[in-house]
Amino acid sequence: MRSTILTAFLLGTAAAAQPVTDKAAVLDAQVSSTEQMAWLKDLTSAPNHVGSPHDQQNADTIAKLFREWGWQVSFADYQVLYPTPLSTTLELVGPVAKKLGGQEPGIPEDATSNNLAGALPPYVAYQGDGDVTAPVVYVNYGLPADYEALARRGISVKGKIVIARYGGGWRGLKPKLAQEQGAIGCLIYSDPQQDGYGAADTYPNGGGRPPAGVQRGSVVDMTTYPGDPLTPGVGATKDAKRLTRETAATVLKIPTLPISYADATEILSRLKGAPVPDNWRGGLPFHYRFGGSDDVKLHLAVKSDWSLKTVRNVIAKLPGSTRADEWVVRGNHYDGWVFGAADPLSGEVAMLSEAKGLGALWKAGWRPARTIVYASWDGEEPGLLGSTEWVEHNLAELRQKAVIYINSDGNGRGYLGVDGSRQFQHLVSTVAGEVKDPQTGVPVLERWRAGVRAGAFEGERISADTLSAAEAGGVLPLDPLGSGSDYTAFIHHAGVPSINVGFGGEGESAGSYHSIYDSYDHFVRWDDPGLAYGAALSKVTGRLVLNLADADVLPLRFGPVAGAARAYLTEIRSLIETRRKDDAKRAALTPDMYKLGSDPRDPLGPPLAKAPTPQIELAALDNAIARLETAAKAFDTAIAAKGAGLTAAQKTALNAKLKGIEQSLLSPSGLPFRPWFRNIFSAPGRFTGYGAKTLPGVREAVEERRFDDANREAGIAAKALNDYADRLNAAAEVLK
Amino acid sequence: MRSTILTAFLLGTAAAAQPVTDKAAVLDAQVSSTEQMAWLKDLTSAPNHVGSPHDQQNADTIAKLFREWGWQVSFADYQVLYPTPLSTTLELVGPVAKKLGGQEPGIPEDATSNNLAGALPPYVAYQGDGDVTAPVVYVNYGLPADYEALARRGISVKGKIVIARYGGGWRGLKPKLAQEQGAIGCLIYSDPQQDGYGAADTYPNGGGRPPAGVQRGSVVDMTTYPGDPLTPGVGATKDAKRLTRETAATVLKIPTLPISYADATEILSRLKGAPVPDNWRGGLPFHYRFGGSDDVKLHLAVKSDWSLKTVRNVIAKLPGSTRADEWVVRGNHYDGWVFGAADPLSGEVAMLSEAKGLGALWKAGWRPARTIVYASWDGEEPGLLGSTEWVEHNLAELRQKAVIYINSDGNGRGYLGVDGSRQFQHLVSTVAGEVKDPQTGVPVLERWRAGVRAGAFEGERISADTLSAAEAGGVLPLDPLGSGSDYTAFIHHAGVPSINVGFGGEGESAGSYHSIYDSYDHFVRWDDPGLAYGAALSKVTGRLVLNLADADVLPLRFGPVAGAARAYLTEIRSLIETRRKDDAKRAALTPDMYKLGSDPRDPLGPPLAKAPTPQIELAALDNAIARLETAAKAFDTAIAAKGAGLTAAQKTALNAKLKGIEQSLLSPSGLPFRPWFRNIFSAPGRFTGYGAKTLPGVREAVEERRFDDANREAGIAAKALNDYADRLNAAAEVLK
Repeated sequence: MRSTILTAFLLGTAAAAQPVTDKAAVLDAQVSSTEQMAWLKDLTSAPNHVGSPHDQQNADTIAKLFREWGWQVSFADYQVLYPTPLSTTLELVGPVAKKLGGQEPGIPEDATSNNLAGALPPYVAYQGDGDVTAPVVYVNYGLPADYEALARRGISVKGKIVIARYGGGWRGLKPKLAQEQGAIGCLIYSDPQQDGYGAADTYPNGGGRPPAGVQRGSVVDMTTYPGDPLTPGVGATKDAKRLTRETAATVLKIPTLPISYADATEILSRLKGAPVPDNWRGGLPFHYRFGGSDDVKLHLAVKSDWSLKTVRNVIAKLPGSTRADEWVVRGNHYDGWVFGAADPLSGEVAMLSEAKGLGALWKAGWRPARTIVYASWDGEEPGLLGSTEWVEHNLAELRQKAVIYINSDGNGRGYLGVDGSRQFQHLVSTVAGEVKDPQTGVPVLERWRAGVRAGAFEGERISADTLSAAEAGGVLPLDPLGSGSDYTAFIHHAGVPSINVGFGGEGESAGSYHSIYDSYDHFVRWDDPGLAYGAALSKVTGRLVLNLADADVLPLRFGPVAGAARAYLTEIRSLIETRRKDDAKRAALTPDMYKLGSDPRDPLGPPLAKAPTPQIELAALDNAIARLETAAKAFDTAIAAKGAGLTAAQKTALNAKLKGIEQSLLSPSGLPFRPWFRNIFSAPGRFTGYGAKTLPGVREAVEERRFDDANREAGIAAKALNDYADRLNAAAEVLK
Repeated sequence: MRSTILTAFLLGTAAAAQPVTDKAAVLDAQVSSTEQMAWLKDLTSAPNHVGSPHDQQNADTIAKLFREWGWQVSFADYQVLYPTPLSTTLELVGPVAKKLGGQEPGIPEDATSNNLAGALPPYVAYQGDGDVTAPVVYVNYGLPADYEALARRGISVKGKIVIARYGGGWRGLKPKLAQEQGAIGCLIYSDPQQDGYGAADTYPNGGGRPPAGVQRGSVVDMTTYPGDPLTPGVGATKDAKRLTRETAATVLKIPTLPISYADATEILSRLKGAPVPDNWRGGLPFHYRFGGSDDVKLHLAVKSDWSLKTVRNVIAKLPGSTRADEWVVRGNHYDGWVFGAADPLSGEVAMLSEAKGLGALWKAGWRPARTIVYASWDGEEPGLLGSTEWVEHNLAELRQKAVIYINSDGNGRGYLGVDGSRQFQHLVSTVAGEVKDPQTGVPVLERWRAGVRAGAFEGERISADTLSAAEAGGVLPLDPLGSGSDYTAFIHHAGVPSINVGFGGEGESAGSYHSIYDSYDHFVRWDDPGLAYGAALSKVTGRLVLNLADADVLPLRFGPVAGAARAYLTEIRSLIETRRKDDAKRAALTPDMYKLGSDPRDPLGPPLAKAPTPQIELAALDNAIARLETAAKAFDTAIAAKGAGLTAAQKTALNAKLKGIEQSLLSPSGLPFRPWFRNIFSAPGRFTGYGAKTLPGVREAVEERRFDDANREAGIAAKALNDYADRLNAAAEVLK
């Protein structure tokens, strides 16, 4: 059964001659939460980091299932730099000697936590090996504003080990900024305020991070480029030309370890020095201080195996019939830090159900118009290795053929969340109107809207266009993609429009994130009991694939793209105004104001001097967005009016015109400091890591006071959007 | 030496024939931090609660000093209901049996903490005796919004004991609202997030509240009326007509105890039930839950001695010469919860230095134009008993004669802070320009301004007029008075304009507040070492008294009063608009939105229905404020232009016209629900307790959705401000 909104919106979803009339019903019949639970239990039965025996075994398991279901399966292997720890050492050497760090302890309530053979100890990938002993400075989140706060108090981290809490920005920025500041080592801990008893009762009493839980992760400088550090921009095939570890820009230089809040307590509670500002305090039961003196000293040492390792992507295809050179690409990674139940295998098992459903259709005689490619990525955790190398390796073909990349990763209980390319948001809402929410029985779209409205009333930060869409019962906007999963190379490097899909918001998987407790037991108890939302994800994403694979004309609407561009420009204008006001306020402060206006027992220096923000040349960008608005409106109106009556020739012409339109958004030079990132529309922030920055060339240049860059990048963005509008106008011509 | 600003502003400060030419120098010569330390040590050497031997002894000590310095001293005694605990019992009866509560432990670093003979155990005065055993519900701050949050989750406190954390509003509101909600007992604890290791290192390592520290206090319903519960509106003389304890509206009905965070941990960490919302979490190291089930049960019992006790105010006078029927009243209380070093004796010793200085002037032949009255109040802590009874007892005379009441209470290290009647703010800034800040050597006014500017830049909430005054180097505005010290009866009941003066912001006395650790040792180590700011307070307040006592014409400016009224009305208009928007949003929520938009495992009901906010008739009030603005501008301009050239007859006429002008601000009917509070300009909030509400009749009626009251109170306020403007116009006539 289709909702009326779907019938009105889609231009047709199947080649007429095919025998399967209700493809969604066939799909749904193959989706089984029980089966997903069995797959999840099997896939999470042993450690799954890149190169581990069980990770390799899972590749075979996944490949075997796809083959059974009728897919054409191949492995795409790459040889990547992936360091694994040979030894990790952390000890307090003063005021008392105490060994810290090491593997997390098993608990009786969690079966696999007692079966850690082959598991790696807590570590962060791509830190710099080293062996240091030094005093410790607490640096809050370890982000630029924190180093400003330290500078205003005359505190330097030069020659020190910093300890930063997780949060405020991506993990990898913390050791990167620490080494830039002259620190010789870095610790990152999970503060219980945000990730521990502050967030939830701790495991096993709740899903929250227990005192000994540690968040592993990658600290490769992914904001410069993700993927294999030795082969930026090209696939890490056996014969690829490689950088050395020392010349690879994304490998850090100082030893870094992640630690638990139990261990952090041993360090932080002993620190001397001035008390930290209010917003630096976490949830540990003592008064936080900066430290920095010889009162507390740590010995930190990490030694890794830096040999090349193999990542193995499992690539499965159903070849297209009428439009075989248009690819619908779908992916989820299967490697984990340890067992990886929530992250990523809860998403992988949902994808398996979809694949089984599509396989059943195939077996029943259905042939998709477009080629469907299902990828199970390896090596996502260390640095999006598998997906990035595959995209780089197949770049030309993907830029030509891929009409969308649909990503998922860990999935959980709660609301549907979809981010990404806005031209698909009509399709997303349409499909979300068709799938039932497991807990309430209403369409997930309805629950999504209710969640937005209730959240807004309760004070959550929700954008005005999202709230008004939810209130009006309209199409919900998609937020822009930053980074943090395998869509990164697709959208930001190859210019393939992408969306990221998952349920969440009500589970407690954050408390097991990247720890040994991210297990089957944790997942079925605290995250998505019964994998009810696993099945819901299969149904949503399976429908997206079905619609995109079979639609005569891709179901795209461009008004939302133009609207987003307009909103992003407005935000940048507002940022510039705010900055100019702040600059004026800072300039008005007299030199002695803080000498008189702060506590002589705990003095605070004046704010650091900064270049005043000038006006930026934004007229051309504004004009380009106006052109895009006009073009999008013309196209959307025409397709809504005439779409159903198009001839086959017109449809073919339209598809041809629309194909690759997003390539217009790629900047020829890439973004400043990181040419690998080429999409002018959004990028992961240089100082947020995962969080998206929109119109990033302009916005980050304003934020970082690179005003010449801002002017230049505004011109580049204007040209890209003008090209995009030209393409759209050309497509609209077909509809005349 | 006078600053130029002072010379320009004051109309003359001494009767010409008197022999003392530089009174401030004589005052300053008598102000000694060393002497204040000696007084403080003596006055805090034993427990000082009302009726304790040492409290009585301090009255004699203070009286003796005043007499030595040439003052006319009398005692003003009142017989008040003041309950003292006979027994306090708190024990966990399930899931384990554990005794809690009782006296705080002494520590070696704090001499008097080991000398607790005669000290009362932690308790709150005017709770309702009782003996109850029941399950426990955590209610956050225990304020109205918290009970709404509970209601939306279907949690009732009926028949339960509530545990609330300190903060968010005045202590006494917590048991009052709890009993209104049907609770049978109440505990109030100091959460370490705001009052413990979150705020400062804990005593003795810092000044912060230690785990076993308890905040005592009054829970008498002071927002209805302060003072003796049995004699509202009249002095509690021996023969006064008295209510019974049962009929006294301000005595609570349910047993209530304050407890430490060590004890709170024993209770809160065991609670079951749903997790609390984010903003309910405190700083204890576990996940906070609502509780309410039989899993955790408490036995709470309090039994008090409810006999009448005597409070003794020490009243000292220097009779005026030329204007003896105009009184400058100055006060500080001397009773404490235990030793009371910071609160209140740090302020009392500063006042003693002033009194010594004025006495020296008197002995040198100086005779003030106006009568100076110095009051050392008893019984402030239980409910502003001494000052309120004295004001009520002398109401007619005070309304006729008192030109100002100048209050201080605990004092500490940091910035000058002055709140109160804005007609004095020019004088306050003038005097603040004359006294040096002990830590930086600049005038306290300059440091005050720097603190405002730096604070604003660092994100503190500072009003626009205060910031612009600080930036312009102008007169700093005074914020309105709520309650919490002895000015209450003066300004809110008698209509005597008042200011409250003290230094603070850099000491750590909050951590010893109302505990046995509020001691000499704590104070000189963590609050105001060397009592440098005690001396600064003496110099500021002494100058205020000298200027006000001797000025030919009171140094008043009314522009700030009119400006405040305008700002308050603007705030109310903005409140109404915000409410109307919120009301519309709430009305737009569909009934099932929260069923779909909240977690079925932890459901949240929709917001409670509320009467929509209509427009309020504010035109008359607006017009009255406009008249006041015109009148104030005319007066201020005329006095600045012609003040210095006034004849003696004109000065006398002007004083007569200005005297008692503030009486116009008293509402004949008093504020809704609490006729004792009569000032239409500001009042302690019914649901803030200490915090001020401005134009309270109107504002609180809007807040509490009593819209008929809002319309009526707007009319009352308009009439009062029109009368005030009339008085001002009449005074300005003299200047023509």
